[in-house]
Formats: sequence, structure tokens, C-alpha cells
Amino acid sequence: MTIADTTVETSSQTKVVLGDSQYGKAEVHVVRVTRDTDRHEIEDLTVVSQLHGDFDSCYYEGDNSHVVPTDTQKNTVFGFAREGIGSPEDFLIRLGRHFTSEFEWVTGGRWGARQATWSRIPVAGEGHDHSFFRGGTGAETRTAVVKIVGDKTHVVAGLEDLAVLKTTQSGFVGYPVDRYTTLPETTDRILATNVTARWLYNRTDIDFNEVFASVRTIMLEAFTNHYSRALQETQYIMGRAVLEAHPEIDEIKFSMPNLHHFVVDLEPFGQDNPNEVFYAAHSPYGLIEGTLRREGLGDTAAIWQGIPAYV
Amino acid sequence: MTIADTTVETSSQTKVVLGDSQYGKAEVHVVRVTRDTDRHEIEDLTVVSQLHGDFDSCYYEGDNSHVVPTDTQKNTVFGFAREGIGSPEDFLIRLGRHFTSEFEWVTGGRWGARQATWSRIPVAGEGHDHSFFRGGTGAETRTAVVKIVGDKTHVVAGLEDLAVLKTTQSGFVGYPVDRYTTLPETTDRILATNVTARWLYNRTDIDFNEVFASVRTIMLEAFTNHYSRALQETQYIMGRAVLEAHPEIDEIKFSMPNLHHFVVDLEPFGQDNPNEVFYAAHSPYGLIEGTLRREGLGDTAAIWQGIPAYV
Amino acid sequence: MTIADTTVETSSQTKVVLGDSQYGKAEVHVVRVTRDTDRHEIEDLTVVSQLHGDFDSCYYEGDNSHVVPTDTQKNTVFGFAREGIGSPEDFLIRLGRHFTSEFEWVTGGRWGARQATWSRIPVAGEGHDHSFFRGGTGAETRTAVVKIVGDKTHVVAGLEDLAVLKTTQSGFVGYPVDRYTTLPETTDRILATNVTARWLYNRTDIDFNEVFASVRTIMLEAFTNHYSRALQETQYIMGRAVLEAHPEIDEIKFSMPNLHHFVVDLEPFGQDNPNEVFYAAHSPYGLIEGTLRREGLGDTAAIWQGIPAYV
Amino acid sequence: MTIADTTVETSSQTKVVLGDSQYGKAEVHVVRVTRDTDRHEIEDLTVVSQLHGDFDSCYYEGDNSHVVPTDTQKNTVFGFAREGIGSPEDFLIRLGRHFTSEFEWVTGGRWGARQATWSRIPVAGEGHDHSFFRGGTGAETRTAVVKIVGDKTHVVAGLEDLAVLKTTQSGFVGYPVDRYTTLPETTDRILATNVTARWLYNRTDIDFNEVFASVRTIMLEAFTNHYSRALQETQYIMGRAVLEAHPEIDEIKFSMPNLHHFVVDLEPFGQDNPNEVFYAAHSPYGLIEGTLRREGLGDTAAIWQGIPAYV
Repeated sequence: MTIADTTVETSSQTKVVLGDSQYGKAEVHVVRVTRDTDRHEIEDLTVVSQLHGDFDSCYYEGDNSHVVPTDTQKNTVFGFAREGIGSPEDFLIRLGRHFTSEFEWVTGGRWGARQATWSRIPVAGEGHDHSFFRGGTGAETRTAVVKIVGDKTHVVAGLEDLAVLKTTQSGFVGYPVDRYTTLPETTDRILATNVTARWLYNRTDIDFNEVFASVRTIMLEAFTNHYSRALQETQYIMGRAVLEAHPEIDEIKFSMPNLHHFVVDLEPFGQDNPNEVFYAAHSPYGLIEGTLRREGLGDTAAIWQGIPAYV
Repeated sequence: MTIADTTVETSSQTKVVLGDSQYGKAEVHVVRVTRDTDRHEIEDLTVVSQLHGDFDSCYYEGDNSHVVPTDTQKNTVFGFAREGIGSPEDFLIRLGRHFTSEFEWVTGGRWGARQATWSRIPVAGEGHDHSFFRGGTGAETRTAVVKIVGDKTHVVAGLEDLAVLKTTQSGFVGYPVDRYTTLPETTDRILATNVTARWLYNRTDIDFNEVFASVRTIMLEAFTNHYSRALQETQYIMGRAVLEAHPEIDEIKFSMPNLHHFVVDLEPFGQDNPNEVFYAAHSPYGLIEGTLRREGLGDTAAIWQGIPAYV
Repeated sequence: MTIADTTVETSSQTKVVLGDSQYGKAEVHVVRVTRDTDRHEIEDLTVVSQLHGDFDSCYYEGDNSHVVPTDTQKNTVFGFAREGIGSPEDFLIRLGRHFTSEFEWVTGGRWGARQATWSRIPVAGEGHDHSFFRGGTGAETRTAVVKIVGDKTHVVAGLEDLAVLKTTQSGFVGYPVDRYTTLPETTDRILATNVTARWLYNRTDIDFNEVFASVRTIMLEAFTNHYSRALQETQYIMGRAVLEAHPEIDEIKFSMPNLHHFVVDLEPFGQDNPNEVFYAAHSPYGLIEGTLRREGLGDTAAIWQGIPAYV
Repeated sequence: MTIADTTVETSSQTKVVLGDSQYGKAEVHVVRVTRDTDRHEIEDLTVVSQLHGDFDSCYYEGDNSHVVPTDTQKNTVFGFAREGIGSPEDFLIRLGRHFTSEFEWVTGGRWGARQATWSRIPVAGEGHDHSFFRGGTGAETRTAVVKIVGDKTHVVAGLEDLAVLKTTQSGFVGYPVDRYTTLPETTDRILATNVTARWLYNRTDIDFNEVFASVRTIMLEAFTNHYSRALQETQYIMGRAVLEAHPEIDEIKFSMPNLHHFVVDLEPFGQDNPNEVFYAAHSPYGLIEGTLRREGLGDTAAIWQGIPAYV
């Protein structure tokens, strides 16, 4: 019944071959408790592991001799967690170096993680020793991706869905007008977005937790510090602030929906509405995606390939 | 082509009649900015409005003379927001009383809201005047339901998905064993759940925001203060603490998944695992739902009918 | 550290007691393959099991001697699947009767299932023996709930999210107008909804698969056979048709969003729009919920309590 | 308050510049009814439009003179729908050519669509003239992406979440074993996946609806026609079959979860389980992603950049 091992020519006489591929295990949810003392620590990662390398014979002939099972990849995540996590980036680097050194035909791969935030439950003004609630920061999720290509290790940190909103100091005017333009100009609107950002490090010997916290703070402050003439401008100001403060970051990519808040027309009800009552529309939404980078930085398209990015 | 107005008898000669019904508008997302001073306030509610009353002629004859359009219900939410929100409970009470007094055939209804939390972005140690990020507390959503039946107004406050976890001081032993039992006993496990709770007030002249904050704090502290022999026991301790502290609450209902965190067997990899590495399973999950109430409280089933509850 | 077993009085001197409760396991996804011949059959259910009964001592004292583990409930689902499924309703009845007969303190419970539809992949005009694709009917999910209370067994069948749409033969006029009314009347609109329906059987000796298929067909046809003057009228016509055809059904409950399709104003672009181009809004949406029942049927509120219903 | 227009040097004296960017409107849900006769046709697309080009001055200076509003992009979708859709690919090509010809600084872009399937409700064996239900094929969603770069137009068709399952004729053996391997070999398992596929056309003058239907049929049949020694092999067989049959397709990319169905151990309950009862796990899952392409095809990485792909 197996038909894969016959030689096949396409109708147009071209052979069909394998191009890029990757495979592994997704949604490996590992929770690591450090309980050396009564004051426990918790780390909560959902990990994806995917290998690149020579898997041709599996595709062409169903020969699995190179196919490190996805189940083994999952097991390895748990085994490595026993040795500690530290930061998602450090953990993924160790994982990736394991696979690429353990199996000679594995020439690289992509390892990613989303981290859930747990905060200590406050009891009488103190954080509890072993009881936690999720959140306590914002609505965002911290993310990390490590990509290994041959002997190069690329680290991309990020966050998803950091929801921010300003109730004033934003407008949109001066855009081109054509047959399909009906949007009125405004100099005072709500600006709301869910920031998804990913930034590329140029080194791996970094205190990733500390830099993450710093980047998050810088982005939030930069969101507040100017009159926004377009979400693009705000993106630039946020990205520039990050790159200015962190020489270990070369490039940052943003994907930000423009979450429209429309002023409701209350006139039919005999009411005015001086920018106080808004209808928050969920769809459609604007989608603004941009990359800020150091001038002169070389082409990084190959690094970003296969990383959940956008531009 | 209309066939509804012919008299119809069922095959078994029973007439088909309208039983309970309700209708209205869901997912009305209103954002209210108070900008009397440069320090703006923001309130963010997603509202559902549903009316009860005499709608027979619409069902039987397509006669809409009693059908306050769902579009009008939506407009009313925005119009009322212009006059201020205050708390979701107070806002819904005002909405409900409007509909039941404005239209004589509307004898009651159900109005609900989910509130999104926005916190001021900290800049140089101070919360910003008009820039906010979502969250800042936990992962939960505050909810409120107001139900009007004739001249009675019932207020149910609540929260959804307050994720909490304790890394120790929880066990499960002493359960009955049958043919299908394979679960081993444990005296030290992770206990994790997403608390969904709804509580029924016995008054409407309450500082709902203040009581909400208090109930949330009490539930969190009660989660920490005992060795949990079952999630049911923890539910009881949490509910009792709320009812003890708040005489204006008569009843509280909990729905809590038991989010299993399984100790990973690392022995095959030559590692021990003293409750440090866990696999967080997403499904299936335990589901523990219970009501705590004051002894002697009368039957409240009719009040809870149609309110998104569970038991 | 255990504090549950002290006698507690509320601040207002009322004792806190357990009201309604239920517990069990949710999202037990069982796939049953029947492979007696080369032509395999597949049944795919996601099951929830929840027990009612005497669980006071667990709540008050952390005594688990009555707490059939949720893990055991899950195991029982798999064990019973070995003996065959047949229909979700029959399977849940067998499950429920097992728990209520096996454990004397379990006086009832609720068992539910969602069924995924798999169709044979067509190959050369024939359905394949052992290869399937999901769907092939509509976008809906079949559901079933069995509720046991003492010696009564109630069966509620249903479906969720049967998406239907008609491009004409629907309007909405003649509704009351107040200060907040801005909706224009229309005699020709798109009517679109996702039907969620649950119906209550008055017997348990039924070919549940056959009746399910019939009810689905009847509802679809009834959706087409009239000019709809309101979604309420359509709900009545659909429900009446089901009850007329099926004397074994006493009551049917519908929850239907009114999924608004707005005619886009193309005039600013120099185009007309004779009901051809629509913007499909996702939120807010109308929500129409009604119960159709046989005249003279007694009060069924207690049966529906705890069943995911709406009215 | 504007700070964007000051010249800024990064701390490490590198200037920050704009790299790749794109922006537009997402989730534009357009429903197009053709009602030239009583037998209506319906087309249902959710469209995203994103422009590439010279938007530097907006980023650097908040100058919107090049920023075609996302609102205008949305309006254009509706305006173009008035002229007919035909196929998602043809519609997106027309849209893209409009933007790139209308605005000289728009040098390209990406336009995407998901199409919902509506089938006629059968009444007395005939499809109804104007009443439809969603689905009727499988659980999948048809997708299309058009990317314009300068004077090149690239068309990528696809589908998402075509759920398929075979109950036998699949196994997994012969894989490498290391310290972390615990997976047992199997020669008879359930193979289940949700096929997401995207294929790149080498022409634009194609009957896209016809080819889509053909590719879907070929993939389904190829899924059935062999003993699968790995999901990778099945991917190859499916992709090769598509490329053989369709010379207008140069490359196809698959992303397929391996949706594990574990044989439940029923021995503790005194039952055997000859591959009849399975636990369908939702996470973690295997994730197998591969590209099949014509031998000798040039580098297409730039084409796939920014298209929701995976490898």
C-alpha cells in the first residue's frame, strides 16, 4: 500500500522535492517550582521545539532514522526544567544547543516559549510564600524565540498583547483623499492598541529578565510622552527609545492593531458628547506593523524567517 | 408566504405556546472617559441587555408593537453612559429601571456587564494622567448582573477567571475506591484554579466598587490560609469568609476548575523530581461547583434562573 | 493549619451552609473506533460528568469519603466507551445510572456531551473505509445532556451554532419608538443567526440519532418556509414544527444571535447598492432567546436548572 | 509635546531607522449577494489589506500625506465588492492593483482573505433559492493571499484546518533513541491532523475556484491512499500529488499538527482495548511543517515573507 518510494515525475516532468521543513512539539506546558526554602518560586512556560536538518529520507521513504520523536523533544523540555529555567531565553538556548549537538543531522531549529506571570498573593501587606495569582502586571504575555542556524544562535525576545490606551494627545490629519475616503480628520481621539513586539539581540550573554523588564517600562513610558500624530509615529518613538537604551538590541518589530474607539453620536437622544462616550469596535481594525533598526544593520530576513513575525 | 398566523395544532393535538423568553442586545462595548480635569478617568464595560415581558404577539403573529428594538437597547446604553457609570451594578440598575418603567409590557429583564480593568501607566513613580494599560491587578474580569422581576431588583456581582495557585499545602486522600479508580493519594500537590464567583446581594444601596474589592481580597487571602484537603473545602472556606465579612451578601456561587499539575516522572532520564517539575494539563479538568449561603435563606432558584451560573 | 473544622458564625450570627453543588470532570475527549470489519466506524464525544448528592462533609471538614474522584469519573467514561456508545444520549444515560446506583450518596447528576461529526472521505465516488474528514454537514455541534434527579432521568438533546442565513424574505417594522430609537424600518434584509437549540424529551426509549437528524432537518426547512417579520416569529415557527412532528419532545429552547448584516452606503463612492453589498458586524449583536412548549406542560424550571441553557 | 522630529542618535551613536513596514485594515467582513434572479448567490469574505511603500515621513515626522487611511482601504473593499467578487484570488488581485496604481508611493502590499462556505438548505431534495447554512463541506476555511512587489503579483491560495483522521494504516517506528526517549513504537495508530496548506501559483490567469476544489480533493484522496510511516511522508505524498496534477502550482507548504489519540489502558478496569477506545489529547501536539516544490525552482523566501506561513 505504500506508494511513496516509487520514483515520481510531475505531469510537467519536474521532480517534486522537499524545501524548507521543521517539526517538533508544540504547547509543552511546564511549571517549575523552586522549593529550596519555604519561600517558593514559580516559573511557567509553554514551550515549542522544532528541529531543522536533514529529514529527506523520512519525507521520501518514510525512514524515521533521523526523526527525533516529538515525544522525545517534549520529554527533554521536562528533563531540562529539572536543572532550572532562569529565563525563557536562557532555557531555550540550552535546549537548542542540546538538540543541535546531540544529533549530527540536526543543523538548527527554533525554540519558543510564552511565559505566564504569577505574582505572590498579598497577605497583611506581604507576598505569600507559596500562593500566587496570575497577572499582577498587565494583560501581556512575555515571549521568547531562539533560532539556531549552523553555529549561529539568534535570540528574539518579545511580548504579546500589552494593551495600552490614551484618552487624549492623539490625532490623525493630513492624509491623502481619494474617491473612497469618508474618514473625517480628528485632532483629539482615543488611541488604543495591543502592543506585540519582538526584538533581536546581538549577544546571548545578557540578563534577559532584567532587559525584558526594562524594555517593557521604556515602551510604556514612550507611549505616554508625546502627542501621537499616527500610530506609526508612536511605534517609531517606542522603538527608538528601546534601541537607544539597549545597545544589545539591534532591531525591534511591532505589530499593533489600531483599536478604534468611535465617539457615539448622542444628538438624536438630545445629548452632547464632548469625547466622553465611545463605542469600542472590535472589527475591522487598523493593523500597523513596522520594524525599527540600527542604521547600517545588515539583512536579517533569514533570521526572522519562521519566527512568528509579521513584516 | 407567512404561515405563522394560521392556527396550528401539534400532531398530538397539543397547542404549541411560548414559555420563558428574553431578548435584547449583547456585547455592547462602551468606554466612558471622565475628563472634567486633566486627570482623566476611564470606565470600560461590555453590556448585555435583555427584556422579559409580554412578547406573545411577536412570536405568534410577527407583530412587533411590543418589541423595543435591540438597537434601541444598545443606544440606551450609550445614552445612559453619558450620565455617568459609577459602578457596573449601579449602571445596570438604572438601565433596568428605565426599561421596566418606560414600557408597560416590559415586566423585567436581565442586564449584565463585564468590566475591563485599566491602570495608569507609571511614569517616574506616578500614574499618568491620561495613559493606561489593561490589567495591573490579576487575570480576572469583574462581572455584574442585575435582574428585575416585577418590583424586585436582584443584584449579583462576581468575577471570572481569577487564576490562583499554591505550590504546597494541598492534598487529596481518603476518597472512595471502585473498579475504575487508579488515582494515587497525595498529601502534597499543586492546587491551581481559575475562580469564577458570583454573589447575591440582599440590598441595592451598596458601595459596589468597595465591596467588590473587599470580596476579591478576602477570597485571595482565604485561598492561602489553610491546608486544602479538597477544592471543595477551599471553596467553603473562601465562601464562608466572604459571607462572614459582608452581611449584605446572602449567597455566593463558585465554579472552579481543578487545573491539574502532574509531577513529571523523570526517572527514565535518570533524574529525581521532588515536586519541582510539573506538566500543566489543560484538559480534561476537574470542575467543582458549589453554593455557600446563610442558613435559613429561602429558595433563590428563581433569582438565579437565566443568570450565567452553574449550580 | 486547617481551619475549616472550627464552628463558625457569620458576623451577623448566621451560620454558612452548603447549598446546591455539583462536581466532576470536564472535557473528557473520547474517540471510539468500531473495527469489527474493515469498514470502521468512529464516534467522537467530549464528555462532562458531574455528580449531585451528599458532599457536605467534604465542604465542612475536608472529609473525602464521599468524593468519587473526578479522575475516576474520567476513567469510567473510557471504560464505558469500551462497551459501545451508540448515541450520546444513550451513553450518558448508562453513565449516569452507573454513578447513581454505584454510590448510594450520589442522588443524581448531570452528564453532557458534544459530538464531533466525521464523514468518510470520498474516493472514486465511494466513502473510504477508514479515512474521515470532520464536518460534511454544517458548522454545528450536536450536544446532549442527561440529568438524573432521584429516580427521574431527563434527556435534553440539542445543537449549537447551526449557522443559517437568508438573503431575503425577512424584515422588521412596526416596533415602538422612543427617545433612543434611531433604527429605520426595513422590509427586505438579510436574516442570519447561529441556531443553538435544546429540546426536552418526555421518554428515554428513543432512537436519539434518528430524531436528532429529523429535528435538524425540520429546523432548517422551517427557517426557509416563511417571510420572517422578526427572529422571534421564526423561532416560533421552527419550534412549533419540531413539536408538531415529534410527540416525544415536550419543550424546545432557542438561543439565537441576530447577526446583523448592514447594507453598506456606497453613495459616497458613486455607486448604488440594491441590497448586494453587506458589512457583517460581529458585535454588538441581537440575542433572541425563547422557549416553545406544549400547552399545559407543567413547570420544568427545576429540570433545566444547571443545564447550559439561557431562559 | 511632540518629540519625534528632533534628530536622535542612539546611546551607541547609531541612528534608528525604519525597516520593513506594512499597514492597513484587518477583519473587513464583506458579504456579497448576487440577486439578478430569484436564485441568489452569496460570497462571504473576511479581508485584510496592507500596503507597502514609502511611509518614512509618517514614522519620523508624523506626516500623514502618504498614509492612505485604513478606513479608506476598508471602504475600497466594499466598493470593489459592488463590482463582483468571483474568486477571493481575483478579488484581491483587483484590489491590490488598484492601490498600487492609484498611489505612486505604494509600491506593493499584501491582501488576504478567508472565505466562509455557505451551502443551500435542501428542501424537498432541492437547494433553496435564498436560504443557506454554513459549512456543508468540511471544517476547513479557504484562504487566499495576493502579494504585490513592484510589478510582480504573487498569488498564494490555501486552506486552514481541514481536519482529517484515519483509524488505521499508520505507524511510527525506527526513530533514534536517546536518554529522553520513552515513546514505544507502533505499527497501528490513529493518524489525525488539521491540514493547513498554502500553495504558490506561477500564473494569475487561472480558474481559482476550480483549482481550489481540485487541490482539496487531491489532498483528501492522497491522505487515504497509503500506509503512513510518518506524517512527514504523508505530507510529501499529498504535496507531490498536488504538484503533479497542477503545473500552475510551483510550491506547497503544509503545517500539520499531529493530534495524538492515545490508546487508553483499560486493563485496570478488567477490559481489553484492541485499538478501540482512544483519549484525544489536545496539547501538547506534534507539529510537522514542510514545503514541497518543483526541483530547480528558485529561491522564493522573499515571496513568502509576511505571508502567514511557517517554514
